[in-house]
Amino acid sequence: MKVHNVALVGAGRMGELHARNAASNPRFRLAAIADHNEQLASSVARETASAAASYGEILGDPNIDAVMVASSTSSHLENVLAALGAGKSVFCEKPLSLDAAALADALPGIEASSKPVFIAFNRRFDPHLRDLKSRLDGGLIGSLETIHIINHDPALPRLDFIPRSGGLFKDFTIHDFDTARWLIGEEFVELFAVGACLIDQEIAALGDIDTAKLILKSAGGTLCLISNSRRTGYGYDQRVELFGSKGALRVDNLPGTTVSKLDEAGGNGASFPFSFAERYAEAYRAELDHFADVLDGNAAPSTGPHDTLRALRLADAAERSFKSGTRIRLEGVMGDA
Amino acid sequence: MKVHNVALVGAGRMGELHARNAASNPRFRLAAIADHNEQLASSVARETASAAASYGEILGDPNIDAVMVASSTSSHLENVLAALGAGKSVFCEKPLSLDAAALADALPGIEASSKPVFIAFNRRFDPHLRDLKSRLDGGLIGSLETIHIINHDPALPRLDFIPRSGGLFKDFTIHDFDTARWLIGEEFVELFAVGACLIDQEIAALGDIDTAKLILKSAGGTLCLISNSRRTGYGYDQRVELFGSKGALRVDNLPGTTVSKLDEAGGNGASFPFSFAERYAEAYRAELDHFADVLDGNAAPSTGPHDTLRALRLADAAERSFKSGTRIRLEGVMGDA
Amino acid sequence: MKVHNVALVGAGRMGELHARNAASNPRFRLAAIADHNEQLASSVARETASAAASYGEILGDPNIDAVMVASSTSSHLENVLAALGAGKSVFCEKPLSLDAAALADALPGIEASSKPVFIAFNRRFDPHLRDLKSRLDGGLIGSLETIHIINHDPALPRLDFIPRSGGLFKDFTIHDFDTARWLIGEEFVELFAVGACLIDQEIAALGDIDTAKLILKSAGGTLCLISNSRRTGYGYDQRVELFGSKGALRVDNLPGTTVSKLDEAGGNGASFPFSFAERYAEAYRAELDHFADVLDGNAAPSTGPHDTLRALRLADAAERSFKSGTRIRLEGVMGDA
Amino acid sequence: MKVHNVALVGAGRMGELHARNAASNPRFRLAAIADHNEQLASSVARETASAAASYGEILGDPNIDAVMVASSTSSHLENVLAALGAGKSVFCEKPLSLDAAALADALPGIEASSKPVFIAFNRRFDPHLRDLKSRLDGGLIGSLETIHIINHDPALPRLDFIPRSGGLFKDFTIHDFDTARWLIGEEFVELFAVGACLIDQEIAALGDIDTAKLILKSAGGTLCLISNSRRTGYGYDQRVELFGSKGALRVDNLPGTTVSKLDEAGGNGASFPFSFAERYAEAYRAELDHFADVLDGNAAPSTGPHDTLRALRLADAAERSFKSGTRIRLEGVMGDA
Repeated sequence: MKVHNVALVGAGRMGELHARNAASNPRFRLAAIADHNEQLASSVARETASAAASYGEILGDPNIDAVMVASSTSSHLENVLAALGAGKSVFCEKPLSLDAAALADALPGIEASSKPVFIAFNRRFDPHLRDLKSRLDGGLIGSLETIHIINHDPALPRLDFIPRSGGLFKDFTIHDFDTARWLIGEEFVELFAVGACLIDQEIAALGDIDTAKLILKSAGGTLCLISNSRRTGYGYDQRVELFGSKGALRVDNLPGTTVSKLDEAGGNGASFPFSFAERYAEAYRAELDHFADVLDGNAAPSTGPHDTLRALRLADAAERSFKSGTRIRLEGVMGDA
Repeated sequence: MKVHNVALVGAGRMGELHARNAASNPRFRLAAIADHNEQLASSVARETASAAASYGEILGDPNIDAVMVASSTSSHLENVLAALGAGKSVFCEKPLSLDAAALADALPGIEASSKPVFIAFNRRFDPHLRDLKSRLDGGLIGSLETIHIINHDPALPRLDFIPRSGGLFKDFTIHDFDTARWLIGEEFVELFAVGACLIDQEIAALGDIDTAKLILKSAGGTLCLISNSRRTGYGYDQRVELFGSKGALRVDNLPGTTVSKLDEAGGNGASFPFSFAERYAEAYRAELDHFADVLDGNAAPSTGPHDTLRALRLADAAERSFKSGTRIRLEGVMGDA
Repeated sequence: MKVHNVALVGAGRMGELHARNAASNPRFRLAAIADHNEQLASSVARETASAAASYGEILGDPNIDAVMVASSTSSHLENVLAALGAGKSVFCEKPLSLDAAALADALPGIEASSKPVFIAFNRRFDPHLRDLKSRLDGGLIGSLETIHIINHDPALPRLDFIPRSGGLFKDFTIHDFDTARWLIGEEFVELFAVGACLIDQEIAALGDIDTAKLILKSAGGTLCLISNSRRTGYGYDQRVELFGSKGALRVDNLPGTTVSKLDEAGGNGASFPFSFAERYAEAYRAELDHFADVLDGNAAPSTGPHDTLRALRLADAAERSFKSGTRIRLEGVMGDA
Repeated sequence: MKVHNVALVGAGRMGELHARNAASNPRFRLAAIADHNEQLASSVARETASAAASYGEILGDPNIDAVMVASSTSSHLENVLAALGAGKSVFCEKPLSLDAAALADALPGIEASSKPVFIAFNRRFDPHLRDLKSRLDGGLIGSLETIHIINHDPALPRLDFIPRSGGLFKDFTIHDFDTARWLIGEEFVELFAVGACLIDQEIAALGDIDTAKLILKSAGGTLCLISNSRRTGYGYDQRVELFGSKGALRVDNLPGTTVSKLDEAGGNGASFPFSFAERYAEAYRAELDHFADVLDGNAAPSTGPHDTLRALRLADAAERSFKSGTRIRLEGVMGDA
């Protein structure tokens, strides 16, 4: 078993999560943690028996093989490019960028690098969704006809996050674009999106929406429904349903507990997870194992810069469809991505 | 389709239920209804387009082919014998009697009658339990090893019912004895029962129990667990689980609604029925169809006086086991029943 | 309790179902049954202790108060108008017509009649959906934000039905339009529909589709997703999900049995109904009770000709959206309906 | 965060599981691994970045604070006593011993030691069962009346394990005795057990049983049903149900996946885990955290030698009840335990 020296840039919520996972994964040694907020970097380093450092120090350290980028989204691309420039392999929290044009510009340079870049879309590593995909690919429901994705957040994010989120489609639906592309194994050719601000009018005031419904059609004719909401009030609602010529397959919500209560109200309390950190805990651990496989030379990144550009272009198209009220044909729009 | 003229004796809760079912079953004409409480008889007759009459008038009416006995349990045997004496076929709500000795005495006379006597144990007509039995008999789980029955009432009966109920084992567990015998298709050879008064000490003051747990062993070695409670607080808990050499089969509670709610409490409200009348509504209708089949000469009563005597003797044995704290061996005890 | 003399026109599958329900409902006497196929009329009459007659005889019979129209869809409007002309109250199986223009023309005459016309949309009488609506109306999930309807048939209809079905939107989606309008209590203002022929290319050859996905927006901003399929292969998939400001409410599929099996495959066999007749059995019975209430003067028809015209215009708009690939704004389009 | 140097004795299946958990728990450093089979010790040491050593070396190493005993059951007590003698704290896989008399003899010596001894019963650390207990203790179902435990293994163990297992009651039911005592918080006063060999007659030939049903009564009158089977064929069936004065609480089986399939058979494939290692994976990790808390001085062992002696005496009583067919009164029998 090879142990990889890895450093982390970005010690916020996602960074801390990846730091803990790296610290308890025997295939990694978490060598250093950088953050603009040095106190944060030190605090996470203490928890994970690592050390705080500047990003510059990390890039200059020849003992560090790979960098995990979990800084704010707007700095992802820059940090990734710097890491590649320093000869490091890269694990980057999704998305690589919110700007399709900038990403398209950077793509040739990224691809010319000899080091791998893995963009971590957590759904692809969820054991339930992987089980779903493997049964689909095994022909269990014949040919796939339609796919429904429900992706509803438990609670609104802080309002100050909205302006730097990239908007609902780029921040949130982007997961579903990637999941649908991965499951179907085809590109989409048409898209229609409806957005609305139904939950909190402050979000509309910030120019964003909190609710969306989309219909997509793939090259082979598979139809895809996506439903997004920024707030359920009852948990993180994460469901995927596949309808095929020989039956259907579903991933239902993961019960938070198997304990249920029965009383006069007749009800039972099988709640499900309230946070992505809980729901996709195993996925986040599996992402790291996949990255170790990539570093070992035994796997190619499951999602690379091209995939992230495609998902980003779908998000841009969704925005245009929503704003114009028209169906968008995606040929041409997707460019080389 | 032959239409049978049937009369009802007993217009209480069970009588009214059977009256309504007879009135909406095209294979029966509900000719008359008798009850000591003449107002009750008239009221149920009005609802069902029938007529009130005395039991004597019913027995003397040559146009009446069959009698449904749903009077108080203590009068079942007497009313059945009178109906047979008048040449009527008989449908009798369970149990035929609470007194095994009296029933054993009456048995030869009942059997000498040319008319059929059907004792209505509702579980045998429940479509879910019938589905269970048919899958079991079809070998779906290989050879049956153990069986678990949960039979818990939603709410305590009125306390004035307790003294005339016959006690928990004869009033309540008797259903489970019959169900278990029917499912296994074998007689029991050993029984151990524990009873307790855990819900309402008034019941203990009346000499009865409200909770029981039993273990039985059949002639072929199948083990059976029975759990009884007079009050769940959350609905009528009716479950049967069969464990076999090739898997398990379960009848779970029937959801009262398919509507569920999700909210902060994470709970959903899939309640299940609160009353036997709801839970076994289809079974009660099916009992009447079975009785029509018996009257048509196309079926033998699914449960006859012998079966009811056997269930009664199991109840008596449970009482002795509970009071003595010993296991009861049932050979010999079951007599000719 | 008033007993209403009712006659039936149309003794096919739906007619037979309504005939049986009328025959076992004490509030009706099923006086006569008409069908072009006289043998069919006689056969259903025999089963239900009714009599075969011509539709002319029925209309001329002063003892018949009401007519149930369950003939082929293309004759619904004509039969309804004839019944009204003869002074009968009318129960009409959905839809009243497949031709919005013809229906709009006939509407003033129908409304001028002194007799009620009830168009039977079964979902409005399903106890589960009624429970859902009553919880929604009771404010259980706060204000309604979005609604998802899955309406998937178990198996393809006979191909010869397709050309006279009116097409998927008018034959099938029309239920969902009515259900959504009923649940939301508002009209829709925008609609986008995608249709496809994914199951059987013979349907495309006949000019129809077998799969559809729709997004609608109501006047108040509620978003509605509808998914339709002509074949699941696994049962009649009938689900409705409401998302509101305080949580969600769902109607899930009704389990066909509560029996489940556990074996090496780990699976359980909780299937759900394969036919509308099973799934909506209670709804069909409740429709008749509602009609009796209407005849008693105690209720207005829950769905009248106006509602059916509105649903029909939504179906027409869906067709246009699908064919043009554009979003349809419904103001103006809905006309007086 | 204090890091504890721990060594492991016993590198079989349970030992390997505990070794992996210790290796990925930042509160421990797994210093050494001993096993009679040195190759096994070396192999597990390699996987966990530890080192193989003899048990003598471990006991003599002043840098090792604590010993995890996961050797064969028959050597547990001896290894625990040796570790205490060497001044080490002890984590011991259940049970401490299969011989109540030997354990009773050793108890005073163990208790005189200044070092803690934690006997790892996994159920007490299962998050689902802990959630259950915390809701019960919070009064959610009022006062507890009865408790049902289903503990059925997925598949028969190797037959050569049977003779050294201690028999079904000591090897298997002992978990349920501990779980029930923990949940109820009271000692049992009566017990009745039925055992049978229904699965494999080879087990009977070895003098053991493969199936058991027990009824126990606690000092406060709570009734407890336990059902055991050595083979379900469908997974590891682990359920607990509590019935109280205000409702019921259940822990159901953990679904192995949230993926389900719907097809003509109507079935879905929600299997559940097949092994204790999967089902109680979190519990095993939590045991180690508890042990770290004990070593930190922040907790007393949740299960100590006294608890294990009590569970063992219940197992002995079950054996006597089964063999004699009589109810066993437990006062006096439990001794000082």
